[in-house]
Amino acid sequence: MRPDFQIGDYGIWIGDLQSYFQPWIKAQAFTSICIVTDTNVAQACLSIFLKKSGLPSDTKIVVIPSGEHHKTLDTCQQVWASMMDASLDRHALCINLGGGVIGDLGGFCAATWKRGIQFLQVPTTLLSMTDAAIGGKLGVDFQGIKNSIGVFQQPCAVFVDPDFLNTLPHREKRSGMAEVLKHALIGDPILWKKLLENPDFERYSKEYWLELLRASIAVKARIVAEDPFEKGVRMLLNYGHTIGHAIESYYLDTAHPRTHGESIAAGMILETTLINDPRLSEIRSGIQSFFPTMEIPGQVTNALWQIMLQDKKNIGKAVLISVPGKEPYQIQVHEVDLEDFEKLFSIT
Amino acid sequence: MRPDFQIGDYGIWIGDLQSYFQPWIKAQAFTSICIVTDTNVAQACLSIFLKKSGLPSDTKIVVIPSGEHHKTLDTCQQVWASMMDASLDRHALCINLGGGVIGDLGGFCAATWKRGIQFLQVPTTLLSMTDAAIGGKLGVDFQGIKNSIGVFQQPCAVFVDPDFLNTLPHREKRSGMAEVLKHALIGDPILWKKLLENPDFERYSKEYWLELLRASIAVKARIVAEDPFEKGVRMLLNYGHTIGHAIESYYLDTAHPRTHGESIAAGMILETTLINDPRLSEIRSGIQSFFPTMEIPGQVTNALWQIMLQDKKNIGKAVLISVPGKEPYQIQVHEVDLEDFEKLFSIT
Repeated sequence: MRPDFQIGDYGIWIGDLQSYFQPWIKAQAFTSICIVTDTNVAQACLSIFLKKSGLPSDTKIVVIPSGEHHKTLDTCQQVWASMMDASLDRHALCINLGGGVIGDLGGFCAATWKRGIQFLQVPTTLLSMTDAAIGGKLGVDFQGIKNSIGVFQQPCAVFVDPDFLNTLPHREKRSGMAEVLKHALIGDPILWKKLLENPDFERYSKEYWLELLRASIAVKARIVAEDPFEKGVRMLLNYGHTIGHAIESYYLDTAHPRTHGESIAAGMILETTLINDPRLSEIRSGIQSFFPTMEIPGQVTNALWQIMLQDKKNIGKAVLISVPGKEPYQIQVHEVDLEDFEKLFSIT
Repeated sequence: MRPDFQIGDYGIWIGDLQSYFQPWIKAQAFTSICIVTDTNVAQACLSIFLKKSGLPSDTKIVVIPSGEHHKTLDTCQQVWASMMDASLDRHALCINLGGGVIGDLGGFCAATWKRGIQFLQVPTTLLSMTDAAIGGKLGVDFQGIKNSIGVFQQPCAVFVDPDFLNTLPHREKRSGMAEVLKHALIGDPILWKKLLENPDFERYSKEYWLELLRASIAVKARIVAEDPFEKGVRMLLNYGHTIGHAIESYYLDTAHPRTHGESIAAGMILETTLINDPRLSEIRSGIQSFFPTMEIPGQVTNALWQIMLQDKKNIGKAVLISVPGKEPYQIQVHEVDLEDFEKLFSIT
């Protein structure tokens, strides 16, 4: 069975896992298999995955604590210790079953275990299906800065099964919509139009989800295939993320953490405002038909700026933001200084 | 100035650093530079390096504790924290100045910092000049198992300056001779002959060192260029290492640790014995003209075997050893079981 998308050496399959997992795994020759997942996903998705995949019940399963707070080197050490216990050799397979944290952290652990074993991404959240699981960006947070430690390494395959979406709470599903919206804005005006017409994602049918996932993944796949190491057009995927990451990092340690999607949704609106983009009002109202307005008090400006200075995309001391150009897949890169940034918050 | 060897994208320069460092660095566009070194090397080599390289005295220098015991994730965290302090962006350069631990650990930290920055290997020990600095194997030990966590990633260049050899104690220099002997045995019969004729390495002239380094590095460079990810012929470089690594790991925690070279020298003799190689007596006496005989008591056999089972080269439960074939660059891979291995120690 052929994958829906092919990026270099690996395929992305979209649809019911049982239809493609077993033929795929039979064609491989792994010496052993381990599944990396977290406590939430283990409850909500593991039995579904084991049933659909037909993997034996004695498969080694590593369960880490849920949440971005645990996306750390300490948790990696727990995963590596389990890999050591299981005597995983270089020809083993690691299956990352979960959201973005699992894909990034499990992928990083696999990519560095004995200098790299193969890994399979099985995203269970909308966010990871449409974004994190595709593109080979792996890593963990360090000293509160997101993805400071990591590598680029491609999975051996990505398996996207929309049935896992039924396990998600509303706010988590909405979080993923931010990346779908972003992909629409940077590469697919038809998808953007479709989203604006039908923002009630809780009522999407499975067929509608398959359609959205294919369209959204197509944008991501096209970009990462063209620019695997983020040297050019891939920067476009960071639309909303320079400010969004800072918002997410900042609120992570407060009583009211923001989801990734909420942060990126706000980031896209703020970055579009910053460059005086003529499409601002359409973009703002489109995003706000999915996300409530986020209030960011002026006094956090400086804290956000400090986090933005650590952004991996920066060159030297400048903070760079990447926003979509007029045409699909066009990119505008802007250098932002603290003064512009401060103005932004005095306006909003 | 052209490098002595070119492996894919990167060059290896052999000779006085001042003749090639400055022209090289001027042709690059790094946003900042940091040097990773250890306490011993900082004392013995740092001022030589700074003088020869002409780098400014305010270059960020990260000094970690010396020794294999510190080749851990804890030490990596210290390096990453310093990189964070220095706000190193993706376009920074990390210079690893030191022996194998520095090259492997500093390289790993660079290769994972913000998903990878460029790094330069400046080996200061014979061992790292002839072996560790070349080939892109990076990593740290985990739970006492050598190089369990790491990646394959090539440096942007390797600068081999024989002047640093003058800073080494006898036993450390001898340790490096094990890899020179190994390279001779696997790929260069003329070098092997030369070594047998003149084992008094403390009296080698600088010109003689340059000649040996070029010959030894030529073997390593040829093999890693052919097989960067250790899927075939590169396994030949593991000659002596399956048993040797186990010996080194085992004794690391005792009152009498063995050097890497001592362990690998013993490993080469033991692996050659294990397969009943007809060249055994020549190989044994050649190696023993550099290294004293190592006594390994029979009761450690099982501990060594347990360590060997963790070896990265293994496939499933078999322990594999790689020994040179009859012709240069030929490889023999043998599967070893515990019974064969036990016999070996009842003989010696």
